[in-house]
Formats: sequence, structure tokens, C-alpha cells
Amino acid sequence: MLKKINHIALAVDNIDAAAKFYQNCLGLELSGIETVSAQKTKVGFFQIGASSIELVQPAEPDSPLSNFLATKGQGVHHICFEVDDIEAEIKGLLEKGATMIDHKPRPGAHNARVAFIHPKSTGGVLIELVELAKK
Amino acid sequence: MLKKINHIALAVDNIDAAAKFYQNCLGLELSGIETVSAQKTKVGFFQIGASSIELVQPAEPDSPLSNFLATKGQGVHHICFEVDDIEAEIKGLLEKGATMIDHKPRPGAHNARVAFIHPKSTGGVLIELVELAKK
Repeated sequence: MLKKINHIALAVDNIDAAAKFYQNCLGLELSGIETVSAQKTKVGFFQIGASSIELVQPAEPDSPLSNFLATKGQGVHHICFEVDDIEAEIKGLLEKGATMIDHKPRPGAHNARVAFIHPKSTGGVLIELVELAKK
Repeated sequence: MLKKINHIALAVDNIDAAAKFYQNCLGLELSGIETVSAQKTKVGFFQIGASSIELVQPAEPDSPLSNFLATKGQGVHHICFEVDDIEAEIKGLLEKGATMIDHKPRPGAHNARVAFIHPKSTGGVLIELVELAKK
């Protein structure tokens, strides 16, 4: 079952400039900007209600995100839904013919498990599913 | 103050095909598909947590949305944040130098008032602000 929108990820050219808008103009609080070495990205989160906005910028020229920005430009990179049971969701999606990028969960931040659904199944948007670690 | 993500709007070529994915594969409930004559669009909403996913498709070839789909293809059209006081938000955004599409609120569905912020201020995404009608 899908519980809520966990986050919306925005690919940006300059995380500091974009963060200023969300902080100063919209009054959201930045969680801090950190580097995710595995993805060669810099990320920052802003909480809004029960969800968050994630800004993400390439940290190095050969970041996987650089290609996205070069071809599509700035904008929404993916949206992420929180689920109770990621294995059950993946199984159901595959049975119903959805095109999955991940056929099994892979590790996400904070011991969460994530899987991506291909945009060709979703109406053009990359969708991430996340099952948070049990506390 | 921003309260939450009200909705994420996805521009799609075929609302019926896209709706099937959100209903059958993700198990979300469709509010029904209706035509918005003023925008020449067909729209359908799926509730997820405190937010919703809006699918939107041109209802006629000269819909304003047709140009978006022709140039950008399917994907996120805009994201919408719910605010307490839309006039205060617009005033603050203009004072801080944000580029507003709407300098004053315009009427939205269900007597809400809305205003759009230009993507050049936001890191590449069209942002709608909505103040819901008082009940």
C-alpha cells in the first residue's frame, strides 16, 4: 500500500542558488547539504508537511545526474512514494506488467530499501518506491 | 507559510492509459475523470496520504497543454504547495525578487485561489501555490 509522497527530487544546476529560493522565498528549512559519494551528487532536503523536497546537483562532471541535466535541463528528476512492503509492491507491479528498473529492492539512505519504476509505465515520470527502516 | 504538497500534476498523452497504472498497479483510487473546459483538459486525481497525484491530458488539440507535451513530452507539469495566506506569499516572493507568473491570486477549482511561480526562480519546476476556500 502507498502511504504518502515521501519526496519530490529536483535536479538543479546549482544547489546553493536553488536552496536560497526554497529557504528565503518560500521559508522552508534546509536539512543541510551533503555529498552522496556513490552517486557523485550533492543533496539537500526541505521538509514540507509530511513530505520533502530534495534538491540534487552533480558533485562531479561524470555524475549520472550530469547527463540528465544536459539532455532534459533542470526540473523534477523523480517522485518517491513511501510503501509498507516494498517486496509486495514490486511483485504486484511485475505481475501487472509494469516495467521495473529494479526487480528487487536496493539499499537507500538510512537503511531504507528502494526500487524504481520506469517512466514508460507511469505516464512519463520516474517513480521511486521506498520502504523505510523499521525503528 | 507552506503547509504541505497539495498535488503533483503529471501531463500525459492518454489519461485512461495512465490512470490504469495508478489504479491497477499502484492501487490508488481515482476520483473520476472530468473535463475542465476553460483549460481544454481532462483531469483525474488520486489521493495519496495528505496529497494527490493529478493526471492531465489535453481535451482538444489547441489545449494550452498540447504545446507542453509536444515540446517536453510526458512528465511532471507542475507541483502545488498549499499555503495559509496566498496574498502574503505572493507579496513576500515579489519582495525577495522571485519571478511570479501571477502577481495576484486567480480563481482555482472549488473556490480556491492560486498563483504560479515561474520555473526560472524555482530550479526549473513550475510551482503553483493554492489557498483553499475557508469551509
